[in-house]
Amino acid sequence: MASYVPPVADYRFLLEKVLGFEQAMSELGRDVDVDLAAAVLEEAGRLCADRLHPLNREGDEQGSRLVDGAVETPSGFAAAYRDFAAAGWPALSADPEHGGQGLPLIVQLWADEMMSATNLSFGLCPSLTRGACEALAAHADAELKARWLSPLVRGEWTGAMALTESAAGSDLSLLITRAEPCGDGSYRVSGSKIFISSGDHDYGGNIVHLVLARLADAPPGVKGISLFLVPKFLPDAAGDFCLRNAMSVGALEKKMGMHAQPTCLMNYDGATGWLIGQPHRGLAAMFTMMNTERLMCGVQGLGVAGGAYQQALAYASERRQGRSADGASAPVAIIEHADVRRMLLSIRSFVEGARALVGWCALQVDRARHHPDPAERARADHVAALLTPVIKAGFTDMGFESAVAAQQIFGGHGYIREWGMEQYVRDVRIAQIYEGTNGIQALDLVTRKLPLEAGTVVSSLFASLESELRAATGLYVADRTLAALGLLRGVTARVREAPAEIAGAVAADYLRLFALVLLGWMWSRMAACAASEPAFAAKLGVADFFARRMLSQTEGLAAGIAAAIEGGEMLAADAF
Amino acid sequence: MASYVPPVADYRFLLEKVLGFEQAMSELGRDVDVDLAAAVLEEAGRLCADRLHPLNREGDEQGSRLVDGAVETPSGFAAAYRDFAAAGWPALSADPEHGGQGLPLIVQLWADEMMSATNLSFGLCPSLTRGACEALAAHADAELKARWLSPLVRGEWTGAMALTESAAGSDLSLLITRAEPCGDGSYRVSGSKIFISSGDHDYGGNIVHLVLARLADAPPGVKGISLFLVPKFLPDAAGDFCLRNAMSVGALEKKMGMHAQPTCLMNYDGATGWLIGQPHRGLAAMFTMMNTERLMCGVQGLGVAGGAYQQALAYASERRQGRSADGASAPVAIIEHADVRRMLLSIRSFVEGARALVGWCALQVDRARHHPDPAERARADHVAALLTPVIKAGFTDMGFESAVAAQQIFGGHGYIREWGMEQYVRDVRIAQIYEGTNGIQALDLVTRKLPLEAGTVVSSLFASLESELRAATGLYVADRTLAALGLLRGVTARVREAPAEIAGAVAADYLRLFALVLLGWMWSRMAACAASEPAFAAKLGVADFFARRMLSQTEGLAAGIAAAIEGGEMLAADAF
Repeated sequence: MASYVPPVADYRFLLEKVLGFEQAMSELGRDVDVDLAAAVLEEAGRLCADRLHPLNREGDEQGSRLVDGAVETPSGFAAAYRDFAAAGWPALSADPEHGGQGLPLIVQLWADEMMSATNLSFGLCPSLTRGACEALAAHADAELKARWLSPLVRGEWTGAMALTESAAGSDLSLLITRAEPCGDGSYRVSGSKIFISSGDHDYGGNIVHLVLARLADAPPGVKGISLFLVPKFLPDAAGDFCLRNAMSVGALEKKMGMHAQPTCLMNYDGATGWLIGQPHRGLAAMFTMMNTERLMCGVQGLGVAGGAYQQALAYASERRQGRSADGASAPVAIIEHADVRRMLLSIRSFVEGARALVGWCALQVDRARHHPDPAERARADHVAALLTPVIKAGFTDMGFESAVAAQQIFGGHGYIREWGMEQYVRDVRIAQIYEGTNGIQALDLVTRKLPLEAGTVVSSLFASLESELRAATGLYVADRTLAALGLLRGVTARVREAPAEIAGAVAADYLRLFALVLLGWMWSRMAACAASEPAFAAKLGVADFFARRMLSQTEGLAAGIAAAIEGGEMLAADAF
Repeated sequence: MASYVPPVADYRFLLEKVLGFEQAMSELGRDVDVDLAAAVLEEAGRLCADRLHPLNREGDEQGSRLVDGAVETPSGFAAAYRDFAAAGWPALSADPEHGGQGLPLIVQLWADEMMSATNLSFGLCPSLTRGACEALAAHADAELKARWLSPLVRGEWTGAMALTESAAGSDLSLLITRAEPCGDGSYRVSGSKIFISSGDHDYGGNIVHLVLARLADAPPGVKGISLFLVPKFLPDAAGDFCLRNAMSVGALEKKMGMHAQPTCLMNYDGATGWLIGQPHRGLAAMFTMMNTERLMCGVQGLGVAGGAYQQALAYASERRQGRSADGASAPVAIIEHADVRRMLLSIRSFVEGARALVGWCALQVDRARHHPDPAERARADHVAALLTPVIKAGFTDMGFESAVAAQQIFGGHGYIREWGMEQYVRDVRIAQIYEGTNGIQALDLVTRKLPLEAGTVVSSLFASLESELRAATGLYVADRTLAALGLLRGVTARVREAPAEIAGAVAADYLRLFALVLLGWMWSRMAACAASEPAFAAKLGVADFFARRMLSQTEGLAAGIAAAIEGGEMLAADAF
């Protein structure tokens, strides 16, 4: 496989020209300039290119295995993880109070992009550990935090999220895992959980499970679920974490992809745990970290698309098949064929647009956390909440489609494991499913996010997009995005007014339309900046492609949504 | 997994009500009525459901293996194949002159649909054998035919297509396999071929390879390629096929899917073969069978989508998660959720529309072969040629998307191998690549098929669609299809006039637009017929969904094609 080239020049272009990074940081009173952010990203990129990328193919072939009840990850993974942790990478954006480096989220998410581009299986464990840290930091009491948080933040220990059960997936209200108080402040947790990523591994250190379970006096449904911290190792009297807790790996799931990532069926057999936050408020505690988890999940789609793009571009530039349109006699590199460039541009226009958009959204999240003005914090928080399902579902759908297109460029070789392209497709497929299926994201957008603040969050966003796009009138991609924004606004009102059944039927297409408009907005910004940057002149061609080909899809989506709303209810369940 | 229910009622509905089967047969002077066709399909369906479906999952897990130079297929495959052949299934539509049953192609393609729905890996070998038979029947001399054709037609022997080399895939002009005459009418063939499906297996009987190679005096390029028959076993003096030819399996490819299907790297080391047809005319000989091979490939997309749909429908009807939109307290079957029904309907509206369209096209192929009027034969042949790339690429793209949607309905379980949904995705992915990549199909449509007979083939088809749709005015799906046909006609003229580079850039979207209009036409017919058939009332709801949601995509596609043509050339290869 071609080596991976970290897109650091693109990150710098975005920070400096497109996203106003230093201005944004100074508004938050934070002392991080472009050079520092770019230097960190360059180092992260080196790690991804040199250590993680070379492990990816073999990790897929070997897979994680369950040997005598313990998980063995593929050769090289454990050593890479320990080096990764020792170099301080797990704690990039975490609070310095808990041992983090306090860098802005944009740096973390772009580092995640490169990790996803080079080794999606490897990247999941640190990503989930960060989620566990966020939940603990926000909800655990001081004693729990003092004992558990810092080694997790530093990546000496890792985290695992134990939510799903075989009968409770999208609907966690159905979960039956039980917890009973022991009288000493601890609880005994009993039940089986499935799909637990990194539930066990051989990286060393403790593995801290955050487990959703019911107390005996819990009300039924989602309001009776509590969150528990259940570690693999308990401390002995001396405080050494050497006592095995009553939990075990029942099986490893055999999956379509992500073979190096150990996905465990976990059994908790009266395992000792501690309550995080209030009883019966576990789901709310999980949801505080869900937004960043979902952004990170969207970044997985972006990352894999970018990694697959680099391979496809290298192959298309070398592989010679067919004649050029002008009839020359020697076979040409297949990138000369228009249909191949179409596929490459469809991927690249997604990747670069998505990279910008997730950067913009990350700045909003930091604003929501650190801006001095509470009203501005609330505003930024709402915008990030609105964009989160769009990024999670939109980027993972388009990321999957991009991986499929990159595979297609390889022809028959794309179907052969050795070339690595089919692994991108198999690996990224999970991102459309976990962290809330993309159908759940679409419902979240339509039923929870559009109504935020009586609809003013979405209407304000649209208004600011409009004024920015109008200011760029004459720029083709801005004009096209403005037209697409008009379509989006038109259907937004109709979707908000539609009965729940109808809104649910069009939610997925609506989310797609929303994502395309946001990407068009970023392309408008990037094209305006690239016009005066010779090194980024290619962006003008990519922007033009996005405007003509990708934004045109908005016409079909808007028409379909309108027709569906006019049509009323679909075929009833019992008529299938 | 849920058992497979052959869609025989739907076949009968199409034969009787939608496609005018008996009238079509009587015009060809053929004595096949609906009852006979349906009875054959019912038997074929039973074989697929009872024998092939249960082998599919385990076939994926075991895979084919290379043991001491010989291929071992997974448990049960060889026995199933022998029973399949003994019952006469390989020869369904073959000429009775060569041992076939002479049934119309529509019966063969629908039997193929069920075979693809239940076991795509199994179905490929008989499908390729039929292709080999067609090439032999059309081009081999009487002596070759007499010796080789009949056992292939009966399926006692199987065929393999040896075209691709590592440096010659889409561009066969680059192939370097050599053939030299031995002076006795036979040739020695030397070279390596890759991606040879069923190049070896343990089904018993001879394996007849059709190999593309160059003679020493061959002109360069595609006009210097000859076709040779190269069997695994040569006859001894007594005529027994017991002498091993100088050919061997170099390796089995490790693939994304189709694990039960042995995809061989074949080495021919001066293997004995015989020339099929004229020297240097091998590619033309291969192309005579390419049309039906490509139709069969499209049917693979349809078949897998239909198989995956049945599983997804069964799961969605049983799996309970979440509350209904009206807020009832018990969890509902997920089919009650509108977004799940949207996914189911997107699959079903493709499957049933595609089933009808491939049936219509199969009738045209039979017309091209058997109609008493040569002008009518030529007309039907051209229409089938026009539709072939649309069916191959359109159905395999939509078939893949359908498999992905069906997998999505299973949530996390869709990603786990045990549930079988991810296998559909991995298996059907190859159909977008082999038999000419879907990019090649799009170019074929735009550069070869649109210009057929100075463009009158496509314009006549559009005119007949228009008059049929106008006759159904007032039927919603017909009105929407008529509008989409207008868009298609508008861009057809522009695509035909566009420079090759631009036409190539929009070819894939153009093909998709074409496919949607053809499916809309079939849905218009089906909806009109279903209105008076209570047993098929659900088709009205599916037609409505297709009209509102799928046909709306045509607006985005047409807009994108127009914008791309206006925009001119895309980013140049050296600017990437």
